[in-house]
Amino acid sequence: MASIYYHLPFGIQSSIDEKSNKHKLNCVKVNGTKSFSPAKVDYDEISITTATDDFEQKNRQNIPTKKQLVDPYRQGIIIEEGVGYRQTVVIRSYEVGPDKTATIESILNLLQETALNHVWMSGLLSDGFGATHGMMRNNLIWVVSRMQVQVDHYPIWGEVIEIDTWVGASGKNGMRRDWLLRSQATGIVFARATSTWVMMNQKTRRLSKMPDEVRAEISPWFIEKQAIINEEINPPEKINKLDNNAPYVRSNLKPKRSDLDMNHHVNNVKYVRWMLETIGDEFLENHQLSDIILEYRRECGSSDVVQSLCEPQEDDGFITSTGIINNLECNLNGNSVSSEILGASIGSLNKGPFSYTHLLQTKGDTRNEEIVRGKTTWKNKLSPFPFHP
Amino acid sequence: MASIYYHLPFGIQSSIDEKSNKHKLNCVKVNGTKSFSPAKVDYDEISITTATDDFEQKNRQNIPTKKQLVDPYRQGIIIEEGVGYRQTVVIRSYEVGPDKTATIESILNLLQETALNHVWMSGLLSDGFGATHGMMRNNLIWVVSRMQVQVDHYPIWGEVIEIDTWVGASGKNGMRRDWLLRSQATGIVFARATSTWVMMNQKTRRLSKMPDEVRAEISPWFIEKQAIINEEINPPEKINKLDNNAPYVRSNLKPKRSDLDMNHHVNNVKYVRWMLETIGDEFLENHQLSDIILEYRRECGSSDVVQSLCEPQEDDGFITSTGIINNLECNLNGNSVSSEILGASIGSLNKGPFSYTHLLQTKGDTRNEEIVRGKTTWKNKLSPFPFHP
Repeated sequence: MASIYYHLPFGIQSSIDEKSNKHKLNCVKVNGTKSFSPAKVDYDEISITTATDDFEQKNRQNIPTKKQLVDPYRQGIIIEEGVGYRQTVVIRSYEVGPDKTATIESILNLLQETALNHVWMSGLLSDGFGATHGMMRNNLIWVVSRMQVQVDHYPIWGEVIEIDTWVGASGKNGMRRDWLLRSQATGIVFARATSTWVMMNQKTRRLSKMPDEVRAEISPWFIEKQAIINEEINPPEKINKLDNNAPYVRSNLKPKRSDLDMNHHVNNVKYVRWMLETIGDEFLENHQLSDIILEYRRECGSSDVVQSLCEPQEDDGFITSTGIINNLECNLNGNSVSSEILGASIGSLNKGPFSYTHLLQTKGDTRNEEIVRGKTTWKNKLSPFPFHP
Repeated sequence: MASIYYHLPFGIQSSIDEKSNKHKLNCVKVNGTKSFSPAKVDYDEISITTATDDFEQKNRQNIPTKKQLVDPYRQGIIIEEGVGYRQTVVIRSYEVGPDKTATIESILNLLQETALNHVWMSGLLSDGFGATHGMMRNNLIWVVSRMQVQVDHYPIWGEVIEIDTWVGASGKNGMRRDWLLRSQATGIVFARATSTWVMMNQKTRRLSKMPDEVRAEISPWFIEKQAIINEEINPPEKINKLDNNAPYVRSNLKPKRSDLDMNHHVNNVKYVRWMLETIGDEFLENHQLSDIILEYRRECGSSDVVQSLCEPQEDDGFITSTGIINNLECNLNGNSVSSEILGASIGSLNKGPFSYTHLLQTKGDTRNEEIVRGKTTWKNKLSPFPFHP
């Protein structure tokens, strides 16, 4: 638990906004009780007593209050003896990059979407971003501490894929969520992903033990299967913390309104984009991201100013001498207003695999605070449509 | 036709890349003919003679070569007596903004997606971005000249919507594509959109008449219905061209790799984002975009440096005196390397409707070139979940 810090925005997460608190107050009022006893509250009863907006929202969203086995609109079904979720998706035209393959950002989005739809189908989803009813009653939200995605093959525009996702225990108080992306036509595995989650009290911002009430809700859904199997046998080394000696730096990154998710936090996909923007276009054009690990440290809010650091990993035989660094720092009135790196290109060096270490941090007046550490591993693009591993 | 200039990236568009040219060469060789007679080429014959990558791609995409009435994966059906297309979509968690409603960018993405899926279902889709087989044989691509989207209600996270799209004639050589977005549950219309398209020769970059071969392919799909009905009775006034007197300016905007679509052009959604980034967060938080008109002038490539201009429209009673303008121009060695506007906020002025005029242009050494003119109209956000028009 020591490696996990603050509230962080990926996938299933957060829950109680002002509206939801209003829910609870309404409920207490209507029931005429002074104390709020979470375990005794009937969720359907709450719904009836909420404001019109909330009622309309619920009607329009139509979140199930009981477990569903099939969702025809989301093309989702419950699998794995009633506890896993499978969704069939078509890669859309705007989810692919110039090479017509899905971008890593699109894949991360689809992981988030299927995770939430899994909770949606379970009948446990409260109003928030993946929190259960029991979590909501205890003021708890999900926070992600680690995420790893391994991509063997990128799906292409128009391709039909199946995404399986399921959850398991992680230690005493945590949860693991895994995913498997497959070609619907051939069954070939395109990508695997795993993530680790803990609960945080939304008011105190402190990590929380899993209350028995919540354990009773979610533990029946736990299974032991792991998407990335060698992880426990060969636990991955910790990602080094980069410092100011990192060769590639992009400063003064400011979240825009369009980067915020429904929790008003910077979207996880934006983190990955900030990380990859330190790498040169020439490298990105000739290489494919095959593995990304993210270790989350603290949340990034809309007012934070972020710095993205990047360093090639030497022990993979990665040579940096051909890297082209163009780091413009434009200093106006003593404040750094713009900084840009035009590329960390590796020129003609086209061997693999290559790894980069990444760090996103907030630039404070007195000290910097880590948001997320990352490690990316790359392979040569042999073909835009790789079918043979 | 005088108002239409270059090749532009929205929705169904473009077609023949290097690979596709290889198609043709292969075909000519295999058939042993010297001249290429488009009308006589059998498309299936071409497919067989292509490289393995192309074959694999086709297999994985599985683009229909004949008209389909139902696509279970895309949740699409052919409607309107066999010529319109309807797709059911669920608003995904990452398609909504901080207020849990779909962003205008997500709506534009869904319009593009359903347009392409319409062509997909028709059996006419060639390898490119919405071009038909006949267009491909004539080296033609689609270019959009105008687009208008009217949003009455923004769908919310998890809401099921139906998007209808269809095409019609536009003048002698053009095509109109319209859309209607509805709540699947209630049938209430959320948004309407219309667009105008012409064909361009991909090699000469000149606008082209519609060849008879192409007219024969697409005209059976034309219907007269219009999504925005009052347009022909009250044709909208032309959008004024902004100049350097525009009060809100964002300069030095550079397309990133992640902004490029599969045609290697800047994505249409990026255009809209660049336009809206000149408007302050305070205004965006309290107002909802209800109408956007885009008039396209020339394509924007990956190496262009773009400037986004914006001006409130005075004749709507829009007062700018409370606007907060913070335009930092940082000039380094004579080159403008960074410019940023922190907000075009209208403070406490909360009447409506409000309109802005927009211009995106490339900043050249000698002269600027227009990319797209825009007009946005806004209304107060009365509720995050407006149901009553």
